[in-house]
Amino acid sequence: MALVVQKYGGTSVGTTDKIRNVAKRVARTYDEGNDVIVIVSAMSGETNKLVALAEEMCEFPSEREYDVLVSTGEQVTIALLSMCLQSMGYKAKSYLGHQIPINTDNASSRARIQNIGEDNIREDLKSGNIVVVAGFQGVDDQGNITTLGRGGSDTSAVAVAAGLSADVCEIYTDVDGVYTTDPRIVADARKIDKISYEEMLEMASLGAKVLQIRSVEFAKKYDVVIHVRSSFNDNPGTLVMKEDAEMETVLVSGVTCNKDEAKISVMRIPDHPGIAADIFSPLTAANITIDMIIQNVSKEGFTDITFTVPKGDLKKALKIVEDTATTIGADEVSSDDKVAKVSIIGVGMRSHSGIASKMFSTLSAEGINIQMISTSEIKVSCVIEDKYTELAVRVLHAAFDLGNGQ
Amino acid sequence: MALVVQKYGGTSVGTTDKIRNVAKRVARTYDEGNDVIVIVSAMSGETNKLVALAEEMCEFPSEREYDVLVSTGEQVTIALLSMCLQSMGYKAKSYLGHQIPINTDNASSRARIQNIGEDNIREDLKSGNIVVVAGFQGVDDQGNITTLGRGGSDTSAVAVAAGLSADVCEIYTDVDGVYTTDPRIVADARKIDKISYEEMLEMASLGAKVLQIRSVEFAKKYDVVIHVRSSFNDNPGTLVMKEDAEMETVLVSGVTCNKDEAKISVMRIPDHPGIAADIFSPLTAANITIDMIIQNVSKEGFTDITFTVPKGDLKKALKIVEDTATTIGADEVSSDDKVAKVSIIGVGMRSHSGIASKMFSTLSAEGINIQMISTSEIKVSCVIEDKYTELAVRVLHAAFDLGNGQ
Repeated sequence: MALVVQKYGGTSVGTTDKIRNVAKRVARTYDEGNDVIVIVSAMSGETNKLVALAEEMCEFPSEREYDVLVSTGEQVTIALLSMCLQSMGYKAKSYLGHQIPINTDNASSRARIQNIGEDNIREDLKSGNIVVVAGFQGVDDQGNITTLGRGGSDTSAVAVAAGLSADVCEIYTDVDGVYTTDPRIVADARKIDKISYEEMLEMASLGAKVLQIRSVEFAKKYDVVIHVRSSFNDNPGTLVMKEDAEMETVLVSGVTCNKDEAKISVMRIPDHPGIAADIFSPLTAANITIDMIIQNVSKEGFTDITFTVPKGDLKKALKIVEDTATTIGADEVSSDDKVAKVSIIGVGMRSHSGIASKMFSTLSAEGINIQMISTSEIKVSCVIEDKYTELAVRVLHAAFDLGNGQ
Repeated sequence: MALVVQKYGGTSVGTTDKIRNVAKRVARTYDEGNDVIVIVSAMSGETNKLVALAEEMCEFPSEREYDVLVSTGEQVTIALLSMCLQSMGYKAKSYLGHQIPINTDNASSRARIQNIGEDNIREDLKSGNIVVVAGFQGVDDQGNITTLGRGGSDTSAVAVAAGLSADVCEIYTDVDGVYTTDPRIVADARKIDKISYEEMLEMASLGAKVLQIRSVEFAKKYDVVIHVRSSFNDNPGTLVMKEDAEMETVLVSGVTCNKDEAKISVMRIPDHPGIAADIFSPLTAANITIDMIIQNVSKEGFTDITFTVPKGDLKKALKIVEDTATTIGADEVSSDDKVAKVSIIGVGMRSHSGIASKMFSTLSAEGINIQMISTSEIKVSCVIEDKYTELAVRVLHAAFDLGNGQ
């Protein structure tokens, strides 16, 4: 008998009919002789409705009360799914964050899980119950309701799987798994059978919105195998797991793109130690996340620095950077929001050279100019003009043989 | 400094704008130097929406999960009201049933409050917080969410007021207070300034739907003064409190009517000890509430029994009674759902005779036939043909001088 954790997202439980389908799948897993713990999100649209209510109520809702409000979405779903399972003749019991408990720190709206209580759930499983858990929520040591941030139900699922040493953590979503790239851009994008945590982290943060990043970090830390699959069919999905020898033979696992960043350049800065700190400290203080940073080598005592920020923060960032530029005596600040970042990811590139140059030459062959480059052990990212995004993704996908070969 | 408990019902918190109005009233009470605890219901319509979801999900939802589901309504309201108070510059903190805790027995959907935790709320009040409590919900000793039955927020308010020895428990609703009768039937119905718990209990159970019965029982048991008033104006409402000398001088406090009952008669029953039990035990076993029962004196060894049941249970009740009638050898079972119960209520009638006869003669003067009569120390009820209901209420209201004299 295995212990299976299943997580169903908002679209999978969006209506009572869809909840009924989820119940059937859960019941089937139980009938196959497994212990089953189900984690569910709010019905799709519900969280947005609750957020809209908060915004209607006041401009800056307190985070504690915001969490009290939005956590009701998942509470509705666990009750409905449990009722449904019971009406099908199964024993089922719903759990809120504080009833397990899922203990978190006290950072409302972005809490981190610290510990999962095992005893209550174990006892219910032992007496034949299907356990239904509200995702996204926990409780801090003062008994306050906390939430884990958008998409936090993935993290709830992985944390519960880790806490109870589940055999597998199945994350059900509306796609079949993790693809080599966005199938809307490249028709012959291929579903990946197995992917390492590291690659998945790069994929997630670079725009493949299948799993919440933190859930993958959590899975990596506690060595939980995640099976990403569709709740609308029975196809095997993608296993997210520890790197193995087989994965290393694949040089590039996927191609991603991100159009949500803008580029800022500060030109002809009098170069001396500390100028990077001068530029970036005020941005960090304003809660602006900086992604790529390029600093050219100094020439005649001057240097240029270019970096990217989220598009939504561009205006705010520009104002701050312009002030800094004046202070440090830089010549000019320019910006460009018509850029995109294209990346290739693969653990195999660690042990193979030539991957980056192949990327550059592939883009170059299409006449796509590379504006910025950044690399890590398992990825190479290039900033290009945004009108070339889809073209770049397609040619890279083909160049690294990622397609189905259709 | 007084401790004021205020409860706002669903219509008072039906929209974010209405919640803003509630917040202003709460803030005003706080600014006047009081400690304030606010109990709120779900936004009007929300509970019905949740109930509809449960019904859509399955035919007989488990009561435990039903409570998990419907208790989210109040959770939304406490979060919104707390946010609003905070945005107005007040310290506010929301509380769910288990966070106080409001301890109940484990009778899901109709739980009874056993104990209220004082410490958490007291501490928050001491540090200047307005405390906002979710009505309708509690927690049992297993940590399960329980609910108190429809209208349970009134009981929550009275229980919290009792548990923390509040100076007053204000129940805000969409009417100005408790009236001598339904103002939709009698235009010059008068608001009652003070009414005893006992009278209020009779008024509530007889159809004046201002306060949940159980909240009045609770208030009586713990001697909590309830002030029923409107959330839409500043008029003084009705005080529900211990009987005092002034109240006894009023012979009749109010007239109520109820059209939700039907009458069943079993004719020519061979009379011997135990026939009442034979008839009523199967009905009780089927969860059918019997209200009035009339048994005529035995004549030639036969007797007739007439009683009333809720209209919604008439069909089910008839089937059971017909079976019983065959068994015990009664002649005939007949029923009538075109009946209404009209009642007069007043603690003053305990010490005055002639009240009942005045009621009978008043009805008789209008040609209204009385089909059944039942009395208690402080009320007299008559069952009449339902088409005369409004007429009966009007003439009784006038006969006992209850109007404004307009």
